[in-house]
Amino acid sequence: MNRTNALEINPDRLWDTLLVSAQIGPGKAGGLSRLTLSDDDKIMRDKFVHWCKEAGCKVSVDQVGNIFARREGQDPDLAPVMVGSHLDTQIAGGKYDGILGVLSGLEIIRTLNDRNIETKRPIEVVCWTNEEGVRFHPPMMGAATFVGALEVEQALTQTDADGAVFGQELERIGYAGTGSRTPADIAAYFELHIEQGPVLDEEGIHVGIVTGGFTSFGARLEIKGENAHAGPTLMKRRKDALVGAAVIVAEVNKIGWEYEPEGRSTCAKLDASPNMYGIIADYAAVTVDVRHPDPAAAREMYQKALALIPVAAGQANVDISIADEWSFGEIAFDQELISLVRKTAADLNVSHKHMLSVAGHDAYQLAEAVPTAMIFTPCKDGITHNEAEHVEAGYTVPGVNVLLNSVVVRANG
Amino acid sequence: MNRTNALEINPDRLWDTLLVSAQIGPGKAGGLSRLTLSDDDKIMRDKFVHWCKEAGCKVSVDQVGNIFARREGQDPDLAPVMVGSHLDTQIAGGKYDGILGVLSGLEIIRTLNDRNIETKRPIEVVCWTNEEGVRFHPPMMGAATFVGALEVEQALTQTDADGAVFGQELERIGYAGTGSRTPADIAAYFELHIEQGPVLDEEGIHVGIVTGGFTSFGARLEIKGENAHAGPTLMKRRKDALVGAAVIVAEVNKIGWEYEPEGRSTCAKLDASPNMYGIIADYAAVTVDVRHPDPAAAREMYQKALALIPVAAGQANVDISIADEWSFGEIAFDQELISLVRKTAADLNVSHKHMLSVAGHDAYQLAEAVPTAMIFTPCKDGITHNEAEHVEAGYTVPGVNVLLNSVVVRANG
Repeated sequence: MNRTNALEINPDRLWDTLLVSAQIGPGKAGGLSRLTLSDDDKIMRDKFVHWCKEAGCKVSVDQVGNIFARREGQDPDLAPVMVGSHLDTQIAGGKYDGILGVLSGLEIIRTLNDRNIETKRPIEVVCWTNEEGVRFHPPMMGAATFVGALEVEQALTQTDADGAVFGQELERIGYAGTGSRTPADIAAYFELHIEQGPVLDEEGIHVGIVTGGFTSFGARLEIKGENAHAGPTLMKRRKDALVGAAVIVAEVNKIGWEYEPEGRSTCAKLDASPNMYGIIADYAAVTVDVRHPDPAAAREMYQKALALIPVAAGQANVDISIADEWSFGEIAFDQELISLVRKTAADLNVSHKHMLSVAGHDAYQLAEAVPTAMIFTPCKDGITHNEAEHVEAGYTVPGVNVLLNSVVVRANG
Repeated sequence: MNRTNALEINPDRLWDTLLVSAQIGPGKAGGLSRLTLSDDDKIMRDKFVHWCKEAGCKVSVDQVGNIFARREGQDPDLAPVMVGSHLDTQIAGGKYDGILGVLSGLEIIRTLNDRNIETKRPIEVVCWTNEEGVRFHPPMMGAATFVGALEVEQALTQTDADGAVFGQELERIGYAGTGSRTPADIAAYFELHIEQGPVLDEEGIHVGIVTGGFTSFGARLEIKGENAHAGPTLMKRRKDALVGAAVIVAEVNKIGWEYEPEGRSTCAKLDASPNMYGIIADYAAVTVDVRHPDPAAAREMYQKALALIPVAAGQANVDISIADEWSFGEIAFDQELISLVRKTAADLNVSHKHMLSVAGHDAYQLAEAVPTAMIFTPCKDGITHNEAEHVEAGYTVPGVNVLLNSVVVRANG
């Protein structure tokens, strides 16, 4: 491939599909609130399936609602190249996170159709169920089930905060499929996603080629104190669970600053009980999350976070225990696919750089079992998981063209 | 009065009524969870009214559900002496907080009946509605309405967390009365209450004569940050509302330690949004509460708490504003009644000391308009607003006898 025979998507058509998607499940501040398996998720899925069928694809749905839209190859027996992401959003999310990757896949199919181009291998556009993990735990659920990291049964029995069951909700919206695909069937997986960080936007670079992920360690701490009246109870007699949690939050925040700019640390969720004016809390729970591109540094940050437990327990005179621990991110994307994407970007004269991903993505799950590549495109000021999330077509289309040409090369190889 | 003509209550009978009350609205850990205007509150009120009528009292109920049980005096035209407290509890509360004061009033009536003693003035036992302020805001609602510090209409229109309206709940349980009493009708108000602090228990003293209250300053702070993804967002780009709130909580706690043992500081309620793993909070609210017996020191503590606002705002890169502010506690109980209670305790040879109250009580409201005295009795280890709250009859009865004899003296004066 060179610049003269490179394929180009139709940017207006891609943006039109994004605009349609941006109407489905509006948030309160201009973004989207399209939670997994909600009525709005169904409307969006139906629309996506309609577009795929219109583009001549054969659509199948697996047991956890992942949607596969297949454009047949010259040799239907060859393993397909898959490209996709997710259509669900955060509760106050943006219009591009995930969606751009799925609709870019659709636009690739449409572009190939426009020019009557056949590929040797089939190409499949996929929408993974419940990447965000807001309504149902865990995040990246559909992709995790696909690679066998999560049992189908475990996914189907998850419940949301109101007690609704995942499997029942899936049936309710008509996406409880019967297909069961396996990673062994897939030649390669490509995912285009907004960066969810400010680097590309700040540096004016159009494509980030993701080589791996930040290492992330997390924990949920439980803090046990004692109920007492805030008035009469002497400081020295208190066992204030909220103070214990607050010391953790304030001090964990400092760890990120010590490892700045690569490192970051967050306590995003704090629940105290009874959480009433005048009553010292007897219970609190707080999540801790540290991330760093260097696994050793990430581990060091996590050790520092755990070392805060006795400090906070001492200051608040409480018991603190680790209720849950997790880590992710030590993944490696496929070297050959990384080379292919880099060469494609260079051939198309699209500015690009290698990057690490800080957020989790469906591609993390896929990389466990399938040769996988991720392409980042810029998002304004790096703002994401926020209704103000914004991307510009001019900054995005070069990345989608890199995706298109990379997919086509792989589908012919 | 001297020790030979002093009256004595029947301790077993008092304790039997407490045991009955302790069965109504059980908590999860041996205490009570009898929220205002709940079904259990109705059962308790009905029981109390039954006991009062059985003791020959005339019972009336005012517009906010305060219950007045009147034992007539020799001269019905004289202003009555009132004695009481509240029958509602915290959500995980004790079996004595408030209840002991009301049932001690009942026991006084029963003791006078036993001996056919008439008093010149009428004696009224009162149960104030919603002292705790857990289900409906504000606390001390019934007493505040009685003294005119709160409009009846304002009380009736309060809603609980589920949207239930105070006035409708009052009607539902049959305590929407028509009476409207005024403080001008009352000669004196006595309230016996557990100390809700450890001093009497630690020092082995039976009666605390409350001379006034700790000065308390409070505020609700609102913290505004920005939603962002916890993974990609650089530390320097964060506006983390939960970190801002946590710094406030951790640092406010230190203020109490600076002023130890008299001073105390608490942040009891913290709400963050969206409070979800992986998402930096864009909003948090936290309550601040400082108390000290010396009003100047309390003010100084409050100034130190407010001085934390720019510190926390700086550390978390957020905006922090004061959404609400309050103060209470600069009250003075009646000097003549304090002298009467002290003399009574001395005559009865009951160990006693002068004290300041740290918690709010119905008597705080009454003191604004009526000559008022408060008697504290010991509670074990000062544990209160906790189901483990415990009092011993042997430590309590001397205080109830001081109350009985003080009330009778005042009712004859």
